[in-house]
Amino acid sequence: MSNGGLDALIEALRCLPGVGPKSAQRMAYHLMQHDRAGAARLGNAIQHALQAIRHCRRCNTLTELEICERCASPKRDPSLLCVVETPVDMNMMEQTLAYHGLYYVLMGRISPLDGLGARQLELDRLLARATDGQVREVILATNYTNEGEATAHYITTMLKSQGVGVTRIARGVPVGGELEFVDSGTLAQALRERRVLAG
Amino acid sequence: MSNGGLDALIEALRCLPGVGPKSAQRMAYHLMQHDRAGAARLGNAIQHALQAIRHCRRCNTLTELEICERCASPKRDPSLLCVVETPVDMNMMEQTLAYHGLYYVLMGRISPLDGLGARQLELDRLLARATDGQVREVILATNYTNEGEATAHYITTMLKSQGVGVTRIARGVPVGGELEFVDSGTLAQALRERRVLAG
Repeated sequence: MSNGGLDALIEALRCLPGVGPKSAQRMAYHLMQHDRAGAARLGNAIQHALQAIRHCRRCNTLTELEICERCASPKRDPSLLCVVETPVDMNMMEQTLAYHGLYYVLMGRISPLDGLGARQLELDRLLARATDGQVREVILATNYTNEGEATAHYITTMLKSQGVGVTRIARGVPVGGELEFVDSGTLAQALRERRVLAG
Repeated sequence: MSNGGLDALIEALRCLPGVGPKSAQRMAYHLMQHDRAGAARLGNAIQHALQAIRHCRRCNTLTELEICERCASPKRDPSLLCVVETPVDMNMMEQTLAYHGLYYVLMGRISPLDGLGARQLELDRLLARATDGQVREVILATNYTNEGEATAHYITTMLKSQGVGVTRIARGVPVGGELEFVDSGTLAQALRERRVLAG
């Protein structure tokens, strides 16, 4: 094979989410033809990340430390615990600048079709955390998908039985969203969960 | 920084074509959380490819050999030379199983807006190849985009003046294509370039 290396690279690129055979081919040729420096950086970044990155022992997120910076920060309010599905979702919450409590990253969601149940998510660890005496409110910020909703429902049942306060982030019309372009399910929910205006 | 390695990985992933900040973040978390084996393979494949892959000295394509397998094959018809923009396009031609001549890969197209002219494409190398005495017909298989068309036009002018036979792949309604869904420019061309049916 004169192109074993290229074929191996194309095949290897397919481990990236959302990358099929066509994109992988295009990416491989791009790297080899137009951006060898970028390819070298990417190769090194992957090797380094594989060595350095692990899970925070408190919140599960990906970090290079035993306990991540957010969990270790004295500026965070330890009475609030926000539950998200992934580290990406945690970053989205952080970008709002509206939350100053701590996090618990599920690293997944309950999804029976994918063989993911409460056990795989190690929800007993979340239960232990939520009942450690410091947490007063658990804010569920899982996605508003079927799986995210099922996960939120399961966690609510689990925590309520232990007397922990549980809330769920609101759902409705996106800020800046026009009714014309919002799907009717969202609009129906926004109507159902309408709130009284002050004043 | 507790996440220097992760940030570096996210940044490095952006060298891939079509990957913006959001996708890069998703990819990095996916690799670190769900597919460390895939990440390791990808890292190795990149390092290996960077060392092994270079350009074929005859046709320009990416290969691990001095002269690629296709150029070296005695089964290929050396009187036909197909000009394509990229190695990916060459693969597309090969997949038709309808072509058995040789190739010349431009590794680009004439695109004044990107500062790419005839000189950057080293078209004199193509000219030398096309006038080596073996080639009887140069088949232009550049894209039917503005740049691909300009490139084809430039090459045609260059080769015609040297008395080399030049053809262009046909354009028209895609096989399996329905007129209802074909853009009107394509349809107009398909009408203009209609051919007489035998029988």
